[in-house]
Amino acid sequence: MRPRLLFFFMVQIQELQSRVEQALASALREKNTPESLFAPIDYTLSGGGKRLRPLLALMGAGMIGGKPEEALSQAVALEIFHNFTLLHDDLMDKSPLRRGRETVYVRWDENAAILSGDAMSILAYEKLVEGLPADRYPAILKCFTATALDVCRGQQWDMDFEKYALAEVSIDGYLEMIRLKTAVLLGASLSIGALAAGASSREADELFEIGSLLGLAFQIQDDLLDVYGLESQFGKPIGGDIRNNKKTLLLLYCYQQLDAEGRKALEEALRLPSDRFSEKLDLVLALYDQAGVRAYAEDLVNDMVEEALGKIEAFPVSYPAYQAALYRLSNNLLSRDH
Amino acid sequence: MRPRLLFFFMVQIQELQSRVEQALASALREKNTPESLFAPIDYTLSGGGKRLRPLLALMGAGMIGGKPEEALSQAVALEIFHNFTLLHDDLMDKSPLRRGRETVYVRWDENAAILSGDAMSILAYEKLVEGLPADRYPAILKCFTATALDVCRGQQWDMDFEKYALAEVSIDGYLEMIRLKTAVLLGASLSIGALAAGASSREADELFEIGSLLGLAFQIQDDLLDVYGLESQFGKPIGGDIRNNKKTLLLLYCYQQLDAEGRKALEEALRLPSDRFSEKLDLVLALYDQAGVRAYAEDLVNDMVEEALGKIEAFPVSYPAYQAALYRLSNNLLSRDH
Repeated sequence: MRPRLLFFFMVQIQELQSRVEQALASALREKNTPESLFAPIDYTLSGGGKRLRPLLALMGAGMIGGKPEEALSQAVALEIFHNFTLLHDDLMDKSPLRRGRETVYVRWDENAAILSGDAMSILAYEKLVEGLPADRYPAILKCFTATALDVCRGQQWDMDFEKYALAEVSIDGYLEMIRLKTAVLLGASLSIGALAAGASSREADELFEIGSLLGLAFQIQDDLLDVYGLESQFGKPIGGDIRNNKKTLLLLYCYQQLDAEGRKALEEALRLPSDRFSEKLDLVLALYDQAGVRAYAEDLVNDMVEEALGKIEAFPVSYPAYQAALYRLSNNLLSRDH
Repeated sequence: MRPRLLFFFMVQIQELQSRVEQALASALREKNTPESLFAPIDYTLSGGGKRLRPLLALMGAGMIGGKPEEALSQAVALEIFHNFTLLHDDLMDKSPLRRGRETVYVRWDENAAILSGDAMSILAYEKLVEGLPADRYPAILKCFTATALDVCRGQQWDMDFEKYALAEVSIDGYLEMIRLKTAVLLGASLSIGALAAGASSREADELFEIGSLLGLAFQIQDDLLDVYGLESQFGKPIGGDIRNNKKTLLLLYCYQQLDAEGRKALEEALRLPSDRFSEKLDLVLALYDQAGVRAYAEDLVNDMVEEALGKIEAFPVSYPAYQAALYRLSNNLLSRDH
């Protein structure tokens, strides 16, 4: 990456973000009756977040030499869709909080969460094709709809896995679940942004691959951060996933690597009640160490990021500032350079 | 209408219905993992029903001189979307039964109902554009998405009205609610079927009007049938809506027409407990008679159907068999000729 491009793109990212926020806000002001349907949507979309998917969409347009504005409606569509999935997931998972605020089913009720979410998934389709020339509809709709269905599949596998025993969930099954639930939407964001600006199907496919690799790496990094992330700052791990016996890649890999005796110890540790969490955490971490979990997951993340960065560098780019921006965003996401 | 066309189209309706059933069945067989996501979808779509929306879509194609097959994917999309709304509505309304079978949230659980419904709304979009030339995407998506959002709006008004007092819901508000919740999807079915076969926007708009009028008439007829429908067969009305204090057009019109004393009597009748239903029914029916409710609603239905039939007759049709088929279907729906 050429350092001389850094300042240039850093300004752009902020610019892109503020354009996304403006576009989101005006998308909301357009439709507002009945208020009981749209207030939860407004609330959900104004809850902040990284706006990663819209940023990727605008960068996708830039990567093929288009203007980011060409993908602004699609950027909004992807953020609305993502927030729709969060809204329904929070209801299904009975999560009372999201980004420090009450979730919709708590603040309103379950029916508001269901119906406002439904309306959001439709609003996403509305924004997805806004202002688009007819010849760009087919590829964009195909990518978006296939991805949206994959996200539902991923959420279903995730809920199914909760009910499975540890031995019943394979590493491949887990990776496929996070690919569907999280990674493909990042791939689709880059890809659809590019398609909105007139990308060829080959460019779109390549960007889909890049986004999906980043998404996979991002999710595994998340599993890692939950256990090892804040050690440097707090001197001890947080371990929320371990507290909840969540079947993360770390736990699944650990189980696979251990012998019968180790597996028995792991399963016993997971059965410890919540008032013995500190003891549980120590036991699980010791087994993670024994199984080489951290190195395995970090290597996997690094390999995926390297592959994505290599593809970004090799992309036949028309506008290097966006290549540099995406490169740096990828590094930032994975906390490798700050 | 020319009687000599009757036999011709009656064969066609059965043919169209069996094509719809085949297309629905093969749409399901295409995608089936995870099974926990797709089993509730399969169950919902195999629950039968009149398949009215797909039939209208195929007729819409026929009305402009196209082949019904040209709208087969769109017909399937409309049925999937309709069943998605039923699935989520049953959950929101906590309705345990639909067409004599357990609803999805009862047979599986609430999360299955939420997520399988979400997937159905996406599957509807997938089928909506299947095999479509690019230049037909924009008009079809615009009509479908606007309609889908209207259906959500209508469901929200319906739920909101449940919490309102009788005096707070106007006749116009009720008619707007059923227009959004029910009528526009029938309009969209005729219109989208025609657009899939290459209709002009003027033809599509005219068919949308026809379908919407039929949908409004159909819903008001439903309100009527609940009170007066089976009198001839059973010697007494069923009155489920009155039992549940449902704010139908009949109840709202009755309230508007009565003087202060009559309104007080109506509100007292509605407060009677369920073990005094027979008494409640007699009181409410007497007030309906006093207010001229039946004639008002029947006149409204007749006016709407006449307007729709007039528009069907005036439609510059290329293939009279479909005009005749739609004409007769409209009459059948409203039980005017059998």
